[in-house]
Amino acid sequence: MSKAEIGLIGLGTMGAALALNIADNGFDIAVWNRTTAVTHDFHASAGDLAPRITPTDTLEELVQSIAKPRAIILMVPAGQPVDDQIAALRPLLDDDDLIIDAGNANFHDTNRRAREAGDLPFLGIGVSGGEEGARFGPSIMGGGKREYWDRVAHILTAISAKHGDTPCATWMGEEGAGHFVKAVHNGIEYADMQMIAEVYGIMRDGMGMDNAAIADTFAKWDKGVLQSYLIEISGKVAAATDPKTGAPMLDVIVDAAGQKGTGRWTVIEAQHLAAPIPAIEAAVVARNLSSQREARAAGETLFGTAPHHMPHDTLTLDALEQAMITGKILCYAQGFGMIAKASQEFGWSLPLPDIAKVWRAGCIIRSAMLDDMAAALGEDAARNLMFAPKFAELLKSNHAALRQVVAQSALHGIAAPALGSGLSYFDTMRTARGTANMIQGQRDFFGAHGFARTDGGEGHHGPWGS
Amino acid sequence: MSKAEIGLIGLGTMGAALALNIADNGFDIAVWNRTTAVTHDFHASAGDLAPRITPTDTLEELVQSIAKPRAIILMVPAGQPVDDQIAALRPLLDDDDLIIDAGNANFHDTNRRAREAGDLPFLGIGVSGGEEGARFGPSIMGGGKREYWDRVAHILTAISAKHGDTPCATWMGEEGAGHFVKAVHNGIEYADMQMIAEVYGIMRDGMGMDNAAIADTFAKWDKGVLQSYLIEISGKVAAATDPKTGAPMLDVIVDAAGQKGTGRWTVIEAQHLAAPIPAIEAAVVARNLSSQREARAAGETLFGTAPHHMPHDTLTLDALEQAMITGKILCYAQGFGMIAKASQEFGWSLPLPDIAKVWRAGCIIRSAMLDDMAAALGEDAARNLMFAPKFAELLKSNHAALRQVVAQSALHGIAAPALGSGLSYFDTMRTARGTANMIQGQRDFFGAHGFARTDGGEGHHGPWGS
Repeated sequence: MSKAEIGLIGLGTMGAALALNIADNGFDIAVWNRTTAVTHDFHASAGDLAPRITPTDTLEELVQSIAKPRAIILMVPAGQPVDDQIAALRPLLDDDDLIIDAGNANFHDTNRRAREAGDLPFLGIGVSGGEEGARFGPSIMGGGKREYWDRVAHILTAISAKHGDTPCATWMGEEGAGHFVKAVHNGIEYADMQMIAEVYGIMRDGMGMDNAAIADTFAKWDKGVLQSYLIEISGKVAAATDPKTGAPMLDVIVDAAGQKGTGRWTVIEAQHLAAPIPAIEAAVVARNLSSQREARAAGETLFGTAPHHMPHDTLTLDALEQAMITGKILCYAQGFGMIAKASQEFGWSLPLPDIAKVWRAGCIIRSAMLDDMAAALGEDAARNLMFAPKFAELLKSNHAALRQVVAQSALHGIAAPALGSGLSYFDTMRTARGTANMIQGQRDFFGAHGFARTDGGEGHHGPWGS
Repeated sequence: MSKAEIGLIGLGTMGAALALNIADNGFDIAVWNRTTAVTHDFHASAGDLAPRITPTDTLEELVQSIAKPRAIILMVPAGQPVDDQIAALRPLLDDDDLIIDAGNANFHDTNRRAREAGDLPFLGIGVSGGEEGARFGPSIMGGGKREYWDRVAHILTAISAKHGDTPCATWMGEEGAGHFVKAVHNGIEYADMQMIAEVYGIMRDGMGMDNAAIADTFAKWDKGVLQSYLIEISGKVAAATDPKTGAPMLDVIVDAAGQKGTGRWTVIEAQHLAAPIPAIEAAVVARNLSSQREARAAGETLFGTAPHHMPHDTLTLDALEQAMITGKILCYAQGFGMIAKASQEFGWSLPLPDIAKVWRAGCIIRSAMLDDMAAALGEDAARNLMFAPKFAELLKSNHAALRQVVAQSALHGIAAPALGSGLSYFDTMRTARGTANMIQGQRDFFGAHGFARTDGGEGHHGPWGS
């Protein structure tokens, strides 16, 4: 019996989908799950793909079923289970066998595991796109030694999503680089979703639009600059009808957003890096506050909702679209800025243009704009995206609309924290003479921290003693 | 020779000031510094206080100079030096001798040290107010076993700042509770300073006011609801003249704010706690962006500053003051909310009213408003401060002004991220039906995460398959 080209451990939702994807692309795969029945059920339900799948009952059997040098994908829950699985598996392997953690690891853990592996081959790869992506083409962000990536690149590119003919599977750098890029992806996803929720709120509460009109608006935007998976599905969500009540689906969904903590984790990492990502921070705060439903209801009773309603011609849908375009560019500028900072800080050479490219298909934040972002980052990856000519032009044409949207939301009591933070970021980044001189004056006044002078020199103090 | 009542290790700026403060309040103190010359120089320059101070040359001599059961304050750099000092000192002590870390420890380290100490007495206390505070009356936030606090409370309350007759020295709870409260203090300080910098920017760039007029405005506000140390010194900073050039001091200070990382650390902790503190996050982002001076200059060249200038009657100074009042209340509501969350999460019973009280004197954020906050938290510490009648009334009277300020800043291109985040927080917290239903719809669409229905039940899915 011929040996499998690759192995996979962990046949949960994501692992099973990935195994089928691998088989579907013509690779023989051996699989193992802690519960043997799961393994055999999986094999039994694999249909036409079953002949390419070797179910195994023990780790030893799994290892023996794979051609040397072996490659084995772990798709087990992040954290201790990964360490346990590596500890159980490694003694059964040869020294040149490769372990690939494809789960949702925190990149710090991936860094540690890569170091602990020493000369033993190890990769950590971020896989984005949910179950659907895992089955039919995810976006794959790889980290670890390049030679190990090269060893399995033909499989990973084959199973990945394609943008045109380009596979969305890229080696990002050493150690945890792949999992790090995946984390920033998730942070941007939070901000993108939050900005969409904000314009939804303006349309619903300020402009008095019904769900059908809101759905049509998103559908229209999905044909323009904002074309993206998230805009597309927002239109579909707004258009859907609840089968149970016949009411618009959106009106039946409770307004408390869950989070698995990946957005929060991105914010924590940005703080460690001193990388400003206010749009993502605003999105995480918004999710936290959404869960305070009782307090918000008490707030409405106490303070009222006035003046929610906007007179008819306060804002146009075109202005909303332009505001979203502006906000989205600024959010991505922040996200790529964080990646650039990490690249320096961790001594990685993260390929920013390739990151924009790998996000163009398979993942949640895929969007038309990423093509231009890849081009802009290809010109100069160190430059803030807002200064790239293409995006600078978009910002010039559209920032006036973002001003209107933020101002009218403020005046009419409709929260738009992510869009607002985007505008503050833009205005801060186009103000040569900011206001932190006041902060430096205060700090020197109460703590003798010293300040730099505009005419040169550091560590000066003010005449506060008098 | 009689023994000292307390000992102190580390005669840097803060340690020396604290030792003099202790002696000045009538307590005999033994001191030791790693460099013996520093110890003797300190003693020699202590003037009238010298007789109350016992300089010692060795740790052994220090220990022998203190009455049993001993209490020794460590004022050494945070981090490893504290662990090293404890390791060197503990073997020389009796089992009931008390070590007090009064440095800037991260509260996680204080938690660990308290646990490592086991049954051996240990306290971690946060000391706020800079050198001036340490010398003449700091705000002191204590953590550790209550019995150890009680043993030295007479000294710590004597040396602390006084608000009227009330000492600003309070036991906050077990382990790192004192250092935790100090960290939130620092976060609020960041936000308070940032909001002041924003209104300064609006006055300077939008309203075209000169430094003298700005100084007068802060001085006037310092007589009203906003009366506080930070408003007071902002007026003094704006009024000061550069001795070298004769120009207004503020105009000579470079607009790049430093940070020691304590604000950043508070944001990280808030993320771990899932406690929303957007005003503090905005302040940390603003400091980060302030350091990007070259990029900001490039941004101004590319995008221009228009439309900075506000026509004459766009905003009044009264509106600015009311906006600051609103923003400040919301910022403190966030900060106290974070403390309440930590209190639950860590199993502490942090005394929120007493925290407001301990901040009324000696520390950087001391302000008149803290009296009412202490009263409001005394009524119901679990309630969001914005719902307390006194503050609800202030918010009702003043939120319209914050809307105007945020809207006009947005329209005129002047960044006001902390004030803007405050308004978003307020509007989110008074909206019973938010917009996270859209986010839940998206999450269920792409990831089958499930949502709760308004008519009951969790884990439902939408009809997206079609």
